[in-house]
Amino acid sequence: MNAFPARRVSGGPVLQDDVTDALTAAFFDELAAVGYGRLSIEAVAKRAGTGKAAVYRRWPSKQAMTVALVSRFAVAATGAPGTGSLRGDVTQYLREVMAALRHPLVSRIAPDLVAEAARNEELSQALLTAVRDPRRENAELVIRRAIERGELPADTDVELGLDFLVGPVYWRLVMTRAATEEDYLERLVTKIVSALGA
Amino acid sequence: MNAFPARRVSGGPVLQDDVTDALTAAFFDELAAVGYGRLSIEAVAKRAGTGKAAVYRRWPSKQAMTVALVSRFAVAATGAPGTGSLRGDVTQYLREVMAALRHPLVSRIAPDLVAEAARNEELSQALLTAVRDPRRENAELVIRRAIERGELPADTDVELGLDFLVGPVYWRLVMTRAATEEDYLERLVTKIVSALGA
Repeated sequence: MNAFPARRVSGGPVLQDDVTDALTAAFFDELAAVGYGRLSIEAVAKRAGTGKAAVYRRWPSKQAMTVALVSRFAVAATGAPGTGSLRGDVTQYLREVMAALRHPLVSRIAPDLVAEAARNEELSQALLTAVRDPRRENAELVIRRAIERGELPADTDVELGLDFLVGPVYWRLVMTRAATEEDYLERLVTKIVSALGA
Repeated sequence: MNAFPARRVSGGPVLQDDVTDALTAAFFDELAAVGYGRLSIEAVAKRAGTGKAAVYRRWPSKQAMTVALVSRFAVAATGAPGTGSLRGDVTQYLREVMAALRHPLVSRIAPDLVAEAARNEELSQALLTAVRDPRRENAELVIRRAIERGELPADTDVELGLDFLVGPVYWRLVMTRAATEEDYLERLVTKIVSALGA
């Protein structure tokens, strides 16, 4: 997984960046390997070569650690593109989504957290707030900027359009695992742009 | 979950329909409660008020039981509609998809099996063959019949269109859990029809 910026608690003890990085990498490896249900703070600490206290100085619980780290990665993974055209922005956005969904860790972690969230309402709400909401804000910019440029009508259904931006590619890469040919992205973008303007 | 037709093994012992029904209901309840990873044949049999042998007379393994029963339900849940128009067919198809995704058992079982499939390649392949493929055939009929009627161009991208039929609604109901207003289905169908013809 990518390197993450170091985390410091203001007013608290100074936390070593390299330990935070090691714990972050260990957390994602462990989560991908065993899933949220069987993940233990002890195993994460052991994998990072630290003790449990190093984890608890940074995150108060397994859920807090999960929400903080998944949010930091998932929100950074798809920024708001600014290519200057709707087609360009949708293409760039989908390229990032596809890269994320094809990441060997993400392809195991994402379905596991969705399944866990279906059983654990507290985790579900925390992830919706920390992951879904900021991601939707980024995606919304793709549509709102196209409206400002006059590429989409002023009364465009932004809310529903967001589902067309990510839904079809998620369905293909994660759910049906159907093949994606070389011109897949181009064909996908054409259909999405048409749906957004419908 | 719905009642399932009784299962008989030709040439083998006569299997009691009511036991098959009880095992089927017990299987889905247990799967929704504990997930595939922790599901045991013993717990299913106990929940159904039978012994393990009653299960093994019908299905040779946990995986075989899962694939057979999930396939039977999931494929029946969305048939190929024949309303006579693309808009009508898409609407009816999505109504069935939404009812299935909102089913309290399905909303727990589907994400769990997706997560399990990401870790278990053998289960994944079995589900793709027994669930994805026949479901895609039904969905394909929605598009192919519209092409025959001249509602969609002859060179319509059927393969990619399938992702637009289910992807956006799955993304909303299962992934982002965003609200669906009263006119949601109508707005959704308009965007899908536009994407199919793009």
